Amino acid sequence: MEIHSPYLLFLGDARDQLAAKTANGVRVWRPDWCLGQLRLPGCNADCGVPDMSIEEAAAAGVKTVILGVANRGGVIPESWTSELVKAVGLGMDIASGLHTRITEIPELAAAAKANGRSLHDVRQPTRDFDVANGKKRQGKRLLTVGTDVSVGKMFTTLALEKEMRARGMKADFRATGQTGIFIAGAGVSIDAVIADFISGAVEWLTPENDPDHWDLVEGQGSLFNVSYAGVTIGLIHGAQPDALVVCHEAGRPHMRGMPHFPLIDIPTCIEANLQAARLTNPDVKCVGASINTVNLSETEARDFCKRVSDEIGLPTVDALRDGVASIVDNI
Amino acid sequence: MEIHSPYLLFLGDARDQLAAKTANGVRVWRPDWCLGQLRLPGCNADCGVPDMSIEEAAAAGVKTVILGVANRGGVIPESWTSELVKAVGLGMDIASGLHTRITEIPELAAAAKANGRSLHDVRQPTRDFDVANGKKRQGKRLLTVGTDVSVGKMFTTLALEKEMRARGMKADFRATGQTGIFIAGAGVSIDAVIADFISGAVEWLTPENDPDHWDLVEGQGSLFNVSYAGVTIGLIHGAQPDALVVCHEAGRPHMRGMPHFPLIDIPTCIEANLQAARLTNPDVKCVGASINTVNLSETEARDFCKRVSDEIGLPTVDALRDGVASIVDNI
Repeated sequence: MEIHSPYLLFLGDARDQLAAKTANGVRVWRPDWCLGQLRLPGCNADCGVPDMSIEEAAAAGVKTVILGVANRGGVIPESWTSELVKAVGLGMDIASGLHTRITEIPELAAAAKANGRSLHDVRQPTRDFDVANGKKRQGKRLLTVGTDVSVGKMFTTLALEKEMRARGMKADFRATGQTGIFIAGAGVSIDAVIADFISGAVEWLTPENDPDHWDLVEGQGSLFNVSYAGVTIGLIHGAQPDALVVCHEAGRPHMRGMPHFPLIDIPTCIEANLQAARLTNPDVKCVGASINTVNLSETEARDFCKRVSDEIGLPTVDALRDGVASIVDNI
Repeated sequence: MEIHSPYLLFLGDARDQLAAKTANGVRVWRPDWCLGQLRLPGCNADCGVPDMSIEEAAAAGVKTVILGVANRGGVIPESWTSELVKAVGLGMDIASGLHTRITEIPELAAAAKANGRSLHDVRQPTRDFDVANGKKRQGKRLLTVGTDVSVGKMFTTLALEKEMRARGMKADFRATGQTGIFIAGAGVSIDAVIADFISGAVEWLTPENDPDHWDLVEGQGSLFNVSYAGVTIGLIHGAQPDALVVCHEAGRPHMRGMPHFPLIDIPTCIEANLQAARLTNPDVKCVGASINTVNLSETEARDFCKRVSDEIGLPTVDALRDGVASIVDNI
């Protein structure tokens, strides 16, 4: 799957800004790719780019219409379908992060076929993978891991890419989730892969490369989240990371959606991830911690990061407030 | 998926005994269910039960024809299809462990539908699962884990079921692979589940039960096998085991098919599995080790088990030579 930029962000009738979270992430990390947004009646989201019709997007040179919204009730309304059919008729591809598969909308599938355009359901892997072989590959790899889901792993990984590229380092963000795939224009929705092939898919995603090239792999789940640890360990083994960055949300009261599970402490989290990672890379190191301090004041955030840094002896930042330079210095 | 017994073991043209390994496993563990075998011209396997035609099987009361063989080239020959069509015509279900899906053979699918019979592709999960919630469930659970794949986890789990039932304990083998599913008549082919739902599928497979009931969960893969550790950790978290039994093959030179990976030592293997298991059951204990000593002499085997037992301080048996009584004593 390769998603061609530039993009039109299709916001449909997103009820609020949160429903357009994915589109917004693309806008933040790939502003140059986002030529415009399309909002239908009832849309309350705004990604801060020019409003465009399908016709205007085509004329502006948009290559792909991005469906980066949560749609209501999992059903794609007729009003969306007719716009999307129009888009493929004007030579654009569609890429969707919706649960409902756009490839299964008959009139859209037919229109895409007739016009030789691609429909990407980014939540679905589009190819088969081999089982992992664990053989050492040339090139460097960094993986973000975390105390839980939704603690800022994608954000941190993208911030690392930005910082490393600004320093002239060879670095590529490798996407493993839907928002990341839109941002990278490629990737594997790793949690949708068949269990036997998780680590094999990650090996495929992060192939041999130049000795000084860094693949920056977007982490998923957590070894300490009972729902998703299988995905996490497959990422760890498949990426055979040289470096880990541990991510955490300050002040989260318990594992997300599971009041019966306390959060793990950061040192234990680091050690468990290193232990798993040593299987495919005995030289793996944790190079820093990235703390999401969105719920803290500036002062509290600084104190929190300082405390963690003292505890683990590694650079500790809020990637949003501070950037990740000190972590890159430590690589 | 519920596979109704008794069975006819369909051996097709299995080239040798190894090709009929699955059928043979069913014969060993569920002899009462295996009324006969059907061998086509060219078959060199023998499960030691009476040869029967499809008509004879139907007359004998067979409910399901079991395809427990590795077929050549992944293609189901015409000669098989016609026999299977005949079977559903005579009121029998078909259950297959082949890679090729029998549900996708048009004439067989049509015949099954016309006759109201079921076709089970046991390698494919037949339902959707929720993500795991990790909530404590009543009842006891034991999971077999191992230093690698194919070290005797299924055998050990079944031996435990047999021993516990002989003692009048409430115990059920819970199958997670194709041979196990034929033997249990139900189960989930866990390595074929979508990554996000591995542990959720295991929660479904081992639901709440009587306080003194044991689910004996067939393990898969190994935390130390880079290809399959995602499956393994999902099993560990989903089963929330009270007891682990570690399995190992004596004398294996390296991880199966991976000369670049040495075997892990048993104490390290136990500790890593306990550490992962504590997330959903802080009270988990390892209750013994089961060593496959097929490549050792009687004396060597005894010495090997003695050495391991001294090292780990737990009952250590070859389940085939010694049975598993000492492990059950320790539960």
